[in-house]
Amino acid sequence: MTKSEIVKQIKAKKSFLCIGLDTDIQKIPSFLLKEKDPVFEFNKIIIDHTHEYCVAYKPNIAFYEALGANGWESLQKTLDYIPENIFTIADAKRGDIGNTSTLYARAFFENMDFDSVTVAPYMGEDSVSPFLKFKNKWVILLALTSNKGSEDFQYIQLQELDREKLYERVLTKSQQWGNDNNMMYVVGATQAAELANVRKLAPKHFLLVPGVGAQGGSLEEVSKYGMNSDCGLLVNSSRGIIYSSSEKDFGEAAARSAQELQESMKKYLDLYAK
Amino acid sequence: MTKSEIVKQIKAKKSFLCIGLDTDIQKIPSFLLKEKDPVFEFNKIIIDHTHEYCVAYKPNIAFYEALGANGWESLQKTLDYIPENIFTIADAKRGDIGNTSTLYARAFFENMDFDSVTVAPYMGEDSVSPFLKFKNKWVILLALTSNKGSEDFQYIQLQELDREKLYERVLTKSQQWGNDNNMMYVVGATQAAELANVRKLAPKHFLLVPGVGAQGGSLEEVSKYGMNSDCGLLVNSSRGIIYSSSEKDFGEAAARSAQELQESMKKYLDLYAK
Repeated sequence: MTKSEIVKQIKAKKSFLCIGLDTDIQKIPSFLLKEKDPVFEFNKIIIDHTHEYCVAYKPNIAFYEALGANGWESLQKTLDYIPENIFTIADAKRGDIGNTSTLYARAFFENMDFDSVTVAPYMGEDSVSPFLKFKNKWVILLALTSNKGSEDFQYIQLQELDREKLYERVLTKSQQWGNDNNMMYVVGATQAAELANVRKLAPKHFLLVPGVGAQGGSLEEVSKYGMNSDCGLLVNSSRGIIYSSSEKDFGEAAARSAQELQESMKKYLDLYAK
Repeated sequence: MTKSEIVKQIKAKKSFLCIGLDTDIQKIPSFLLKEKDPVFEFNKIIIDHTHEYCVAYKPNIAFYEALGANGWESLQKTLDYIPENIFTIADAKRGDIGNTSTLYARAFFENMDFDSVTVAPYMGEDSVSPFLKFKNKWVILLALTSNKGSEDFQYIQLQELDREKLYERVLTKSQQWGNDNNMMYVVGATQAAELANVRKLAPKHFLLVPGVGAQGGSLEEVSKYGMNSDCGLLVNSSRGIIYSSSEKDFGEAAARSAQELQESMKKYLDLYAK
């Protein structure tokens, strides 16, 4: 999917919502467990009820991998079920030496036709660039994550140049490898104070912001400091939407949660996307 | 597997060889393609012929993941086929926020019973520590990798303290999370000059050294600068062993390549493991 198609979708739906399909067999409504593929059945109902409010779906690959070969089948079926015009993110945080990254890229971009995959930066350019060679596919590079452990390395100040932090170096260095048409960045919403700074370093890139909702970020702060004229944001919510109810009405409940976020997003798009 | 069991195996076999099962359907002998599960058939023959020369097998997960659900079945069968007393490494380079890392840990340690998994450090403590909660299982943390991109971030000098490099910080910081009984480090052999330095910072830890052979590291240098009294090294070779022949005799050819490395290792163990 191209950047202009993403932007078009955001404008049409007045939404920059990404729904995280962190589908946990232990958390889905118990009446689904009698189905042949409970994980897919759950995702199907969630997608049916929420697709009009969101512009992206982000399956968290760990949840599927934890189920072995069956999990990969549920993932494939889920991906096939997501409407064509919705951006898909394999949240896999992969990254390895070149020929291995190429295989990961093939797994997610060719075998499964995801639009994008999250990638860890630690191994540097040749671990990232193989993912950038696929047309209309995206790398979403970890820059600043929303977990406590982000303090361990990402905020460390570097000796060289103007003492930039490691995550800032990731943002600047990686712009030598890709551009805002094939690369986005993960920027944790719990660090809203840093968002304005990220925007200075990457004014045109889309940012994938996890951590609004269950992880506690503020949607208004994220919109205020993170938006650019294209919107430039995909804000993710997982548990806050998909586990809105554990009863028969879980689809409708998810729809209500998604719609609520979408309505706030509409407001912030009018206020800040310029 | 415990550290003392690994050391015992090294002493018995006079080997610290890890064989990388980077099994690529496009590279295995073509006569295997008529088998129901060519990847597993290949691995089975490689394991039959090499297990007496090595102390660890390291399937590169990307190669299996690239084949979808079938690949995961080949991986599971391969793992089940590896003899009990040989250490197994899921080379997956995973790492995510806590609850997601727990799922990855379950996938590799419980569903598949790997002894260890490679983990990327960028997201910090809470992305790594979930893997450390499994008894007799190991995290093998990326410290210094052998690819060109390692220069992009791993060697950056930090402002704080005594201007240590990022990979040094990974070594020191992570020793607050785990110890030499549940954590090893990936240290690229092409950086033999840094190995002595790594040993100062992590004198007792096992190091997983990729990149001897096809990637060009010298086994003698690695042994000289990297060994401790327990040996403390697992040196990996993948393509240099498993693709020694593309004919019917590929198993015997792999055995010869493995034995050759093992004989060098025996010599270096006598020289440097003290």
